[in-house]
Amino acid sequence: MAVYTELAAETLEAFLGTYEIGTLVSFHGIAEGVENSNFLLRTTEGDFILTLFERRVNAAELPWFLGLMQHLAGRGLNCPLPVSDRSGTALRILADRPAAITTFLPGVSATQLDAGLCLELGKALATLHLAGEGYEAVRPNALSASAWGPLLDSCGESGDALAPGLTAEVRAALQKIEAAWPAVDELPRGQIHADLFPDNVFFQNGQVSGLIDFYFACTDFLAYDLAICLNAWCFRNEKTFEPSFAAAVLQGYQSIRPLCEAEKSALPVLCQGAAIRFLLTRLYDWINTPADALVTRKDPLAYLLRLRHFADMKHV
Amino acid sequence: MAVYTELAAETLEAFLGTYEIGTLVSFHGIAEGVENSNFLLRTTEGDFILTLFERRVNAAELPWFLGLMQHLAGRGLNCPLPVSDRSGTALRILADRPAAITTFLPGVSATQLDAGLCLELGKALATLHLAGEGYEAVRPNALSASAWGPLLDSCGESGDALAPGLTAEVRAALQKIEAAWPAVDELPRGQIHADLFPDNVFFQNGQVSGLIDFYFACTDFLAYDLAICLNAWCFRNEKTFEPSFAAAVLQGYQSIRPLCEAEKSALPVLCQGAAIRFLLTRLYDWINTPADALVTRKDPLAYLLRLRHFADMKHV
Repeated sequence: MAVYTELAAETLEAFLGTYEIGTLVSFHGIAEGVENSNFLLRTTEGDFILTLFERRVNAAELPWFLGLMQHLAGRGLNCPLPVSDRSGTALRILADRPAAITTFLPGVSATQLDAGLCLELGKALATLHLAGEGYEAVRPNALSASAWGPLLDSCGESGDALAPGLTAEVRAALQKIEAAWPAVDELPRGQIHADLFPDNVFFQNGQVSGLIDFYFACTDFLAYDLAICLNAWCFRNEKTFEPSFAAAVLQGYQSIRPLCEAEKSALPVLCQGAAIRFLLTRLYDWINTPADALVTRKDPLAYLLRLRHFADMKHV
Repeated sequence: MAVYTELAAETLEAFLGTYEIGTLVSFHGIAEGVENSNFLLRTTEGDFILTLFERRVNAAELPWFLGLMQHLAGRGLNCPLPVSDRSGTALRILADRPAAITTFLPGVSATQLDAGLCLELGKALATLHLAGEGYEAVRPNALSASAWGPLLDSCGESGDALAPGLTAEVRAALQKIEAAWPAVDELPRGQIHADLFPDNVFFQNGQVSGLIDFYFACTDFLAYDLAICLNAWCFRNEKTFEPSFAAAVLQGYQSIRPLCEAEKSALPVLCQGAAIRFLLTRLYDWINTPADALVTRKDPLAYLLRLRHFADMKHV
């Protein structure tokens, strides 16, 4: 559930006066996004999303995110395009928060996945990776392999309350993953989404109509983004691996950007890494979020199952 | 902040298949409404609001509310029009909850009130009252004068923690109001909104473009609805009575439906009654809502100030 900053219509009308996107017709706070307040705006010119950045997102990094979206949209990707005001500025301040208006994307997220949707997802991910070429600014991945050990340490043994022996199992898996993790120059790198779960992908008539929520995007191995999607899209009921879904993601991806041999070889460890990354952040949130809090806690154990699955794989 | 039922796109698409309002383009849970889950739907035919009724609203009363909105919209009032499915049914079940789709209304709520907006509000309220004529089904006001004593009793002396002596002051005021309250046949009755606060009124270009949230509507004195608006619209910063706002509400109202002498005489006590009604429900919610709960508690004392104000008035 989203955090909301209340916004008066008069404040918003004055704010819109500094843009050239028409005058306000209606606006509604929308439920998407845990990190930020999002409003669906209708103006006399069309529909837009207004985001007020509330927390977690480091304000100093916002220009990188907005610049990436402008770059991607400029290359034809269906992602939110940050709209600049009359002075050419996209990152503004509203209600004492960093704020940006982006274009509105039609489409709906899928919750009943199938191989057809996975094929389209794979194509969209590869299209995103190619569109990212030429955006030279680097944003290191704050949740990369080097972050996982400290994250696990910060959880202490608390995970054992969820599943006996969890901490020891994850620690052993992490050591293997760290030992096998590719060196920085071993695999092609670029701008990755790093959180392309089904709720961040809009479909319309079976085609991808939009990719959203770029606030985990960073510069890392392209194939790691694919590994995240194999975790996020290819388990039925959060539990059962669907080989046909994974094959479809890979087929779709490679129809746009074929993987090199080094990427293919690295995929099992990248998938394990992605599993442990979401396992650890979910575990951290589980421990640090009161059971009765606003935000729905996501079950870390779903990613323990994925970690085990990918640890047993010789190739994807 | 709203309660949310999560809704899968596939579930919604199947649901929309039983209507003739096009196919789903996008949907977003919106933040409006504390009682219900509301979604802004876009279909290939236009925009709609989907409401899932969560709590407080008695499902058995929903046909009355939806029927009233259909009646009012049919008479040209800018209110949400419940949309019927192919079988002619507007009240449906979705995600195990009563559900209804209504038309979408453009416009934004005002937070910076002025006499011009109050004039338009007064006109809109009178228009609503006239449009309600001919809707014969009666819904008694569950929060009418007879409910206030028991509501106050249920709060015990808890209000004294908010303001010393509050309980005794309200009890004394209530006795006076009950003694002076008009008999059922003394004033014109009809269908009233009963909660026409600024957040339930949309404006566009200075004109009322929509009245929403009819789930407190009931059959009561028409002038009591006006008294609620005088409480809700005519105090600056929730504190200072603005005679020019009240004059504008009355002028606007009477330009469409002139008050009779009995209504004019009764207005001071009706205004006190409206003040005590919101004071008591806010007090009840204050006592029964944890300070750290989801819902923002509204300060009951704002209505103690209104109660005192209207108790000192000889005429409105």
